[in-house]
Amino acid sequence: MPRIRLTMAYEGTDFCGWQIQNGQPTIQGCIENALATLCGVPTRIYGSGRTDSGVHAMAQVAHMDIPDTRTHIPWQKALNAILPPSIRIIDVQTVGADFHARYASVSKTYSYTLWTNADFVLPQRRRFVWNTGPLDIPAMQEAADYIIGTHDFKSFQNLGTDVQSTVRTITAITHKQGITRYEVVWTLSATGFLKQMVRNIIGLLYKVGKGKICLRKLISTGHLSMIPETAWIWLFRIIRRFWR
Amino acid sequence: MPRIRLTMAYEGTDFCGWQIQNGQPTIQGCIENALATLCGVPTRIYGSGRTDSGVHAMAQVAHMDIPDTRTHIPWQKALNAILPPSIRIIDVQTVGADFHARYASVSKTYSYTLWTNADFVLPQRRRFVWNTGPLDIPAMQEAADYIIGTHDFKSFQNLGTDVQSTVRTITAITHKQGITRYEVVWTLSATGFLKQMVRNIIGLLYKVGKGKICLRKLISTGHLSMIPETAWIWLFRIIRRFWR
Repeated sequence: MPRIRLTMAYEGTDFCGWQIQNGQPTIQGCIENALATLCGVPTRIYGSGRTDSGVHAMAQVAHMDIPDTRTHIPWQKALNAILPPSIRIIDVQTVGADFHARYASVSKTYSYTLWTNADFVLPQRRRFVWNTGPLDIPAMQEAADYIIGTHDFKSFQNLGTDVQSTVRTITAITHKQGITRYEVVWTLSATGFLKQMVRNIIGLLYKVGKGKICLRKLISTGHLSMIPETAWIWLFRIIRRFWR
Repeated sequence: MPRIRLTMAYEGTDFCGWQIQNGQPTIQGCIENALATLCGVPTRIYGSGRTDSGVHAMAQVAHMDIPDTRTHIPWQKALNAILPPSIRIIDVQTVGADFHARYASVSKTYSYTLWTNADFVLPQRRRFVWNTGPLDIPAMQEAADYIIGTHDFKSFQNLGTDVQSTVRTITAITHKQGITRYEVVWTLSATGFLKQMVRNIIGLLYKVGKGKICLRKLISTGHLSMIPETAWIWLFRIIRRFWR
């Protein structure tokens, strides 16, 4: 069975994330339905990761093994003809049997766009931004810099996962202005992410940006060690207390 | 009755354009429903222009006269609380009784985003682009330059309007790359536009961009005068013949 690598883009608004769930619209479910039609048999697709509910993708990788009787199918055209316009196959490549979308991944990049005007959200952007109102961006970047590096991100994961190690390496957290003047795009790159880790990091930065937690104050009052590797874990534990 | 100037943004995907129509979802209809709730009486809103079905707005101006008993209402907050998220009031100003959204307009700017990759449209951009496939952009700009200026745009209007003059001044037609590499944004500015004039101009440029009409060939074979003022009218008449 030849193995095929797909690169997908999707608008996640109307989906309950990537992973197949009974009775819920998911990206994986939608694609596997299309594959069943084209292959004539149930066909599994393996994603590079499982995006959360509402998350969009610009270029997510997946792979699948297709029946030998279906090698002639032009996969991009055929899948795009069946899939809803909210999911598109943007690239298709034949790969070796040793390629695995999840294990072959060397880096993943997530972006969060925060909308900083409390009076309105531009309708054209409402599916792609989180309306936070005004934010202290420099304070957020200062906090973000503590998170960069190789750490045990256990306190950033949500329950319901079974991973061998909770150590991950975040290689970059940067921000820039988005398409409109009220958008700030935060981009996080890492070797991998734990369940809802990105969401929890952004939640932390949001609290800092809203002045609900002051990094400098915490450091000066001795709540936080100045050692970057542990500082953010403490910071996060303290914030979690206020959160719940 | 105090007069108020509203600046609105909307995503037109699910609307049949600006103008109120019985039984159809329109921007004007939606806003007038919200105004009736807030004012207690039917209240008319006057737009600077009537956008076509599916057209989005980044900053369209309108005005309305509010009952003296309703001057205390915080209009932006109140309207945004009632309107669907696809329509937002982004600014509110009190203006004099001599202000009229339509006649006070000195310039209008429309943008058309063309998607140039035939294999897929990025799901996140599908509500905002026209999927044309590859285009000859320099040829399109060359044709566009003929249209700039003050002309009688009669052949560019659709039926069903009753205007005194069909002369308009187009001050600029430019293009630039959009948010993603496959998007080309064409921007047209004019003193005003006739009914579906923008759509027809873009339709003309599209035909040029697809090589279905060659400007240089038409000029060299004498079909077109080299006088810019008349050239484009001829060009358009010839294209119309192929179109229908």
